[in-house]
Amino acid sequence: MDIHNLTRVLHTKNDTKIVMLVADGLGGLPQSPGGKTELETARTPHFDALAKKGICGSSIPVLPGISPGSGPGHLGLFGYDPLEYLIGRGALEATGIGFELQEGDVAIRCNFCTLDATGNIADRRAGRIPTEQSAPLAIRLRDIKIPDIEVFVEPVKEHRFVVVLRGTGPNQGKLGGNVADTDPQATGVPPLAPRATNPDSEKTAEVATEFLKQAFELLAEESTANGCTLRGIASKPKLPSYEEVYGLRACAIAVYPMYKGLARLVGMDVLGEAQTLDQQMDLLAKHWEEYDFFFIHFKYTDSTGEDGDFDGKVQRTEEVDACVPRIMQMGTNQSGPDVMIVTGDHSTPAMLVGHSWHAVPTLLVAEHCRTDVCETFGEAECLRGGLGQFEAKHLMTLALANAGRLAKFGA
Amino acid sequence: MDIHNLTRVLHTKNDTKIVMLVADGLGGLPQSPGGKTELETARTPHFDALAKKGICGSSIPVLPGISPGSGPGHLGLFGYDPLEYLIGRGALEATGIGFELQEGDVAIRCNFCTLDATGNIADRRAGRIPTEQSAPLAIRLRDIKIPDIEVFVEPVKEHRFVVVLRGTGPNQGKLGGNVADTDPQATGVPPLAPRATNPDSEKTAEVATEFLKQAFELLAEESTANGCTLRGIASKPKLPSYEEVYGLRACAIAVYPMYKGLARLVGMDVLGEAQTLDQQMDLLAKHWEEYDFFFIHFKYTDSTGEDGDFDGKVQRTEEVDACVPRIMQMGTNQSGPDVMIVTGDHSTPAMLVGHSWHAVPTLLVAEHCRTDVCETFGEAECLRGGLGQFEAKHLMTLALANAGRLAKFGA
Repeated sequence: MDIHNLTRVLHTKNDTKIVMLVADGLGGLPQSPGGKTELETARTPHFDALAKKGICGSSIPVLPGISPGSGPGHLGLFGYDPLEYLIGRGALEATGIGFELQEGDVAIRCNFCTLDATGNIADRRAGRIPTEQSAPLAIRLRDIKIPDIEVFVEPVKEHRFVVVLRGTGPNQGKLGGNVADTDPQATGVPPLAPRATNPDSEKTAEVATEFLKQAFELLAEESTANGCTLRGIASKPKLPSYEEVYGLRACAIAVYPMYKGLARLVGMDVLGEAQTLDQQMDLLAKHWEEYDFFFIHFKYTDSTGEDGDFDGKVQRTEEVDACVPRIMQMGTNQSGPDVMIVTGDHSTPAMLVGHSWHAVPTLLVAEHCRTDVCETFGEAECLRGGLGQFEAKHLMTLALANAGRLAKFGA
Repeated sequence: MDIHNLTRVLHTKNDTKIVMLVADGLGGLPQSPGGKTELETARTPHFDALAKKGICGSSIPVLPGISPGSGPGHLGLFGYDPLEYLIGRGALEATGIGFELQEGDVAIRCNFCTLDATGNIADRRAGRIPTEQSAPLAIRLRDIKIPDIEVFVEPVKEHRFVVVLRGTGPNQGKLGGNVADTDPQATGVPPLAPRATNPDSEKTAEVATEFLKQAFELLAEESTANGCTLRGIASKPKLPSYEEVYGLRACAIAVYPMYKGLARLVGMDVLGEAQTLDQQMDLLAKHWEEYDFFFIHFKYTDSTGEDGDFDGKVQRTEEVDACVPRIMQMGTNQSGPDVMIVTGDHSTPAMLVGHSWHAVPTLLVAEHCRTDVCETFGEAECLRGGLGQFEAKHLMTLALANAGRLAKFGA
């Protein structure tokens, strides 16, 4: 059952505002069993006030036990079933570096590699060549010309770069994303030839073959990065837009390209070039009247968690808490959003130095949310909350309902 | 996953009795945040005793955030996935006025309308003609004769009436329910011609065309209601019966036609013509030995909620609470039902003056239900309950299990 079959039909429009504040990797773990998590340790008076006023719960990003990456984590929050809507690795990598994929584009994660004299792979990552050396080589590959194909080559980091193929003229709409990796995952053997795994991608395999032929020529004189492999070949995912499925004019206020890109994939407008939370709040204020839905992304609760920095994550949590008062006073009459949500796309406990499967503390404040007993915002308290434990994909439906934007289902 | 695939195979029979007492629109909201809901305000000593003895939880009628109508609300309680089993508008309208649809019937919601001299619609609702004037016109349309079709015309209210088409002889089983509305949703244009949206409904479109031709002739001399439009054309929904999927001899004891009709759609017998809860209890006593499952419907918790009458809903809640002792003393040895359930089909908070998406307080009492900490019956208390938050469609399976009527799944 696709929730959007319901929301497409039931959504109505009004002048309410919905803010979804996502503290990436918000959920955590105590440093020793029975202790407090990062969020519970942090001094978060504003989150606590919202929790007291609103309804709380524990969001399960995908399914119990599943630790999501940024892609599925955010798709869930956006109300797109992360098990239905898969973003191919190449498309996610392109999105993550801020490349604006268009319908029909095919994105590819590429590795520079080292080939020996017989053409076998000697090093699958070209000795993890430093970015300063690899970036100019990626840019050199922009000289590749293929008839009726636009070829984009973007440096990433070390041995990695991204290629996007865009069909033009007779090739428009002709490039499928179903081509197998050319990385044989082994040394002492040659790279594999691009091979379509679906008839819709024969043309892509052909174009990729030509790309590799010219690339190998352009790299032939290099000592280490004298070859490359193609991986995670993927089309731009087809995601229905927020406007279509929810009737919402939606925007994203994020700092990092990945989250701007994910928002763009569901049709959100990406606002400005904020580098700080203050600047994000400025953008929110500036565009308050133009949109119905605001996705605000804060990265550092995740990055400190991924660094295993418990105290850093506590501090970053307090930092994002501090932006709440400005949000709650948005609008000409300073009444703030009609529906205010604070959540995360997954947990990133510093103790685990990475993403985890643990449920994510979530709160929703709205006039008719049916307040529960929660007094503060934290993992343990949210277990007593009125939202219970719920799959993240239901959060948008709850947001719409609380905004009075959903008609009754059936008579 | 259709739950009935399990219950069909696993159900066993015994002499247990299950009572499901549905207080329509039971869930509510406080008058101000942090206050008490209607149910929490009401003095409900009998519900509280059941909650203390039994297991409680919060029922999600369809999905989080979705406010259901009576149709999906009850199908969920009956254990039929409300997203799988859709009841077309015409079929629900016919059900709601007590029309007993048969297999193959096509039901249609009709509007009287006003046509101008050129045949364009001047008023889509014939000036909301009063029922006293419209009912005789609907009855006049019973003169319509179509070969091998039984035509039923039933007045409803104001400009609305219901038509049911039943194929006989060569037309038996030939009428599909896939015909588009003839209401153009605009004035200044003529009504649309009936058009099949699926080849299985060509005959229905043809019959509807003939119906309209004769109807327009019969109404031609009227000043306001000189035409009509057809809407929500729908077949009788195909729902497997309680007997088939649960092995239960089931009956409904309701006052309003809509709930009798919904119960009939799942194969329940509809008992008597009770007008009060006392009379409903009399029917329950009278038929106690004949059935395994008793659906008792109480309407006024919903209607007071829809009127925005908080105090009225409180009073009606106390009224339904007062019938509990009689239920709990049913049977020759006065031991009452083996499984007693109190729930609602959705929330109807007086504060929202209508159906809402909020979870519904639910309790189940049975010998081995695994009692929880709940001391009273109310929205907040149910959040601490052993049933947690669950989709309503799982309630019947829990009822069967607690009645010892389900065998083990797998070896």
